[in-house]
Amino acid sequence: MKKKFAPFFEPDSVAIIGASATPGRPGHEAIRNILANDYAGKLYLVNPRGGEILGIPVLQSIAALPKGIDLAIIILPAKDTPQALRECADRGIRHAVLSAGGFAEVDDYGANIQQETIEIIREKNMRVLGPNTSGHTSTPHNFTSTFFPLGKIRRGRVSYIAQTGNFATHTMKYILTGEHFGVSRVIGLGNKIDVDETEALEYLADDSETTAIIMYLESIKRPRKFLEVAREVTRVKPVIVLKSGSTDAGKYAAVAHTAAMAAEDRLIDALLRQAGVVRIWDYTHLILAGKALSMMPLPKGNRVSFLAPSGAMLVVLADLCIRLGLEVPDVQPETVRRLEEISPPFIRMRNPVDIWASASVHGVEFGYGQGMEAVMKDPNIDAVVPIMMLTKDTGIPPYDFIVELAKKYPAKPLFVTFSADKKYMDECKDFVEPRGVPTFPEIEQPFEVLSILYRCTRAMNRSR
Amino acid sequence: MKKKFAPFFEPDSVAIIGASATPGRPGHEAIRNILANDYAGKLYLVNPRGGEILGIPVLQSIAALPKGIDLAIIILPAKDTPQALRECADRGIRHAVLSAGGFAEVDDYGANIQQETIEIIREKNMRVLGPNTSGHTSTPHNFTSTFFPLGKIRRGRVSYIAQTGNFATHTMKYILTGEHFGVSRVIGLGNKIDVDETEALEYLADDSETTAIIMYLESIKRPRKFLEVAREVTRVKPVIVLKSGSTDAGKYAAVAHTAAMAAEDRLIDALLRQAGVVRIWDYTHLILAGKALSMMPLPKGNRVSFLAPSGAMLVVLADLCIRLGLEVPDVQPETVRRLEEISPPFIRMRNPVDIWASASVHGVEFGYGQGMEAVMKDPNIDAVVPIMMLTKDTGIPPYDFIVELAKKYPAKPLFVTFSADKKYMDECKDFVEPRGVPTFPEIEQPFEVLSILYRCTRAMNRSR
Repeated sequence: MKKKFAPFFEPDSVAIIGASATPGRPGHEAIRNILANDYAGKLYLVNPRGGEILGIPVLQSIAALPKGIDLAIIILPAKDTPQALRECADRGIRHAVLSAGGFAEVDDYGANIQQETIEIIREKNMRVLGPNTSGHTSTPHNFTSTFFPLGKIRRGRVSYIAQTGNFATHTMKYILTGEHFGVSRVIGLGNKIDVDETEALEYLADDSETTAIIMYLESIKRPRKFLEVAREVTRVKPVIVLKSGSTDAGKYAAVAHTAAMAAEDRLIDALLRQAGVVRIWDYTHLILAGKALSMMPLPKGNRVSFLAPSGAMLVVLADLCIRLGLEVPDVQPETVRRLEEISPPFIRMRNPVDIWASASVHGVEFGYGQGMEAVMKDPNIDAVVPIMMLTKDTGIPPYDFIVELAKKYPAKPLFVTFSADKKYMDECKDFVEPRGVPTFPEIEQPFEVLSILYRCTRAMNRSR
Repeated sequence: MKKKFAPFFEPDSVAIIGASATPGRPGHEAIRNILANDYAGKLYLVNPRGGEILGIPVLQSIAALPKGIDLAIIILPAKDTPQALRECADRGIRHAVLSAGGFAEVDDYGANIQQETIEIIREKNMRVLGPNTSGHTSTPHNFTSTFFPLGKIRRGRVSYIAQTGNFATHTMKYILTGEHFGVSRVIGLGNKIDVDETEALEYLADDSETTAIIMYLESIKRPRKFLEVAREVTRVKPVIVLKSGSTDAGKYAAVAHTAAMAAEDRLIDALLRQAGVVRIWDYTHLILAGKALSMMPLPKGNRVSFLAPSGAMLVVLADLCIRLGLEVPDVQPETVRRLEEISPPFIRMRNPVDIWASASVHGVEFGYGQGMEAVMKDPNIDAVVPIMMLTKDTGIPPYDFIVELAKKYPAKPLFVTFSADKKYMDECKDFVEPRGVPTFPEIEQPFEVLSILYRCTRAMNRSR
């Protein structure tokens, strides 16, 4: 599998068919993305006009390409795509990304072109991503076929499979501008006339650059095979899926979006469960779970400790934990002793931890730092969430103690969230995230994500 | 009621008992807050040391105060509070805020002091907020008793009742630094030995400066009376309640937090329903619902239109709407015609609206602007949510068109959320929110909040 897909993810040579000299055009931005990512292989450009684009000479026909290029990125209108694909095959190219839309997702005319394309793939024995895909990305190989202007894509260890062009475009832009984590492989499936979610999953299962897999799906093309593959992968890597189109309104919206009508949702749900896949429901969790898995290990169990500067938050969040299937257990007597030691006299402490008094009297760094360490050490606790109290008047701590604690206890997820001054929330995020500690803007989110990760743990540990 | 509580919310004269010259101390920060809010009444400070604080002369005893001051803010340790309260009564002060903690929420010793305080209140016929309250706020009167350093508190039209000191402190700090909306009255109930949620609600019901009421409660002191009052208020103003302690873990956490054990949750839930109160579950929604109600009217119904730059988002969000009790109906033929008119040829349009093509070809301002106007005009639609596509490469629009549309269709909630570049998301938020259009960082949030607001609409329209 790994070898089979190497031309997609580790191409030594790439041709862009439909290269454009005009900034903003997909055929131009694809080149800029490849250059911005420091792709080390050979890059060929094809456009009948010839000339030069961004310093690279342009060939006037596919026929002018050298033989045996690994991968073609075809950025041409739908109607011109089959012919280009055929010509690529004739130059010995066996792998292609078909970027254009205008196929079966649009109308009957497009459906005909799509059918023609399928026949070429079969006849020429090719492997194709798309059509109607915004491309794919392989940061370990410094490569992307994405035509949406992204610039340098941050490298990470989580991979995404997305049956939507949005992920590799707007969502990736958000991740690059609003977050600090990166990705390993991103696979935009498009209309998946050839490579589908099952094959993509199979590839990522074997991929040493991928430690967790997150998918957005609207349908599953080969459910039986998917189940077979997913059942194995989920024992070694977390697999999280947002499968949409679960309601009638969702399905209705899906028809217009991709050519595939959303499959019957209840069957899919049962299948995902059986496969050990963790299903999620919010688009935002695609991002937040990716962040968590990029920085932290899975929790060994569901026993959470959290520290808040407010009794109200303790109560609301304890309620939330229960709703999410997380436990908020008692900590060990030794931990209680330590928590009381760091608090003003006569304050009784337990889990969840009201850290207000300690942080107010002894400072935020001492109160949170010592309190977090006490619960991170505790064998009754699988994950720790501090709701950091950040306001200038109680003193903004140097944030390194958070990073140090995460390093000292690498087996336990540490998820940070905030209360009070937005300026320092942003500052803390920008400090700790590049150093490996994920933060979450809303206080409910770390618990939502922990619950997702705990379901991954259970899936990985399930009996055969 | 209004007159009865005027000394709390419209005091002409205020005394701080326990004024402090030391920055950071509650007795100091309370003075600074009052000054920062441009309180126009008379302010007296009391501290045995005398002297001057922030330019205001300090009286050495309560006995030295003039007669008949409207309100005393007593910022003294619990043990000294009863005596101070008695002395205040002797100077004709009938209203007091008791800021100290250390009462029944802590131990038996504190419980005894609390009981003594209750007896003084009865004997002297006083009205008291607290103890263990971080204070209250009344922006229409430029006044606050809060001792947490907040500076100028932004004025708004939504009022909060909170059985937690956190709201008037860290959460308010967040609202002031991370949001653009303001508040009208904020009432920190504390241990509510006198003024409780029912009386606070009764006051806000009649308050012309309050258009909506949001509460955080851990218990309801007089359920029957609360039901009686709430049943009427909810017909004229939205009342939203986060009642925590719904699970055993939550209750367990609540014991340590306030003196009141969380009441049996299922009974409370039934009571809230019967009262027309809209119950929420997330702390974050206290803030987001407050923002929405500060800027937008309630939706007349649950029929939503949304515009997204991604089919995947359309499908996921349509699913979400159904789960939240919102409808995503067909729009009128005329609206469809208009949506198709503004899109490239041959693209079929409907609700939810895939605005990608139009915005890509004609620009974000035209695509979104015309698309939003089409659905805002549509009588089948009660609320509109654009998921703004903001990335420099497709062009960042001037944001005024969003504000103009909100002004042109003031009867329909317009909630904005984002996709793509974080920098422009922040920029857009900072432009439209001060001009009355709420934005939400996560794409699910506008729908969650619309669902809360729609439940308010139903409560207001329910039959007797």
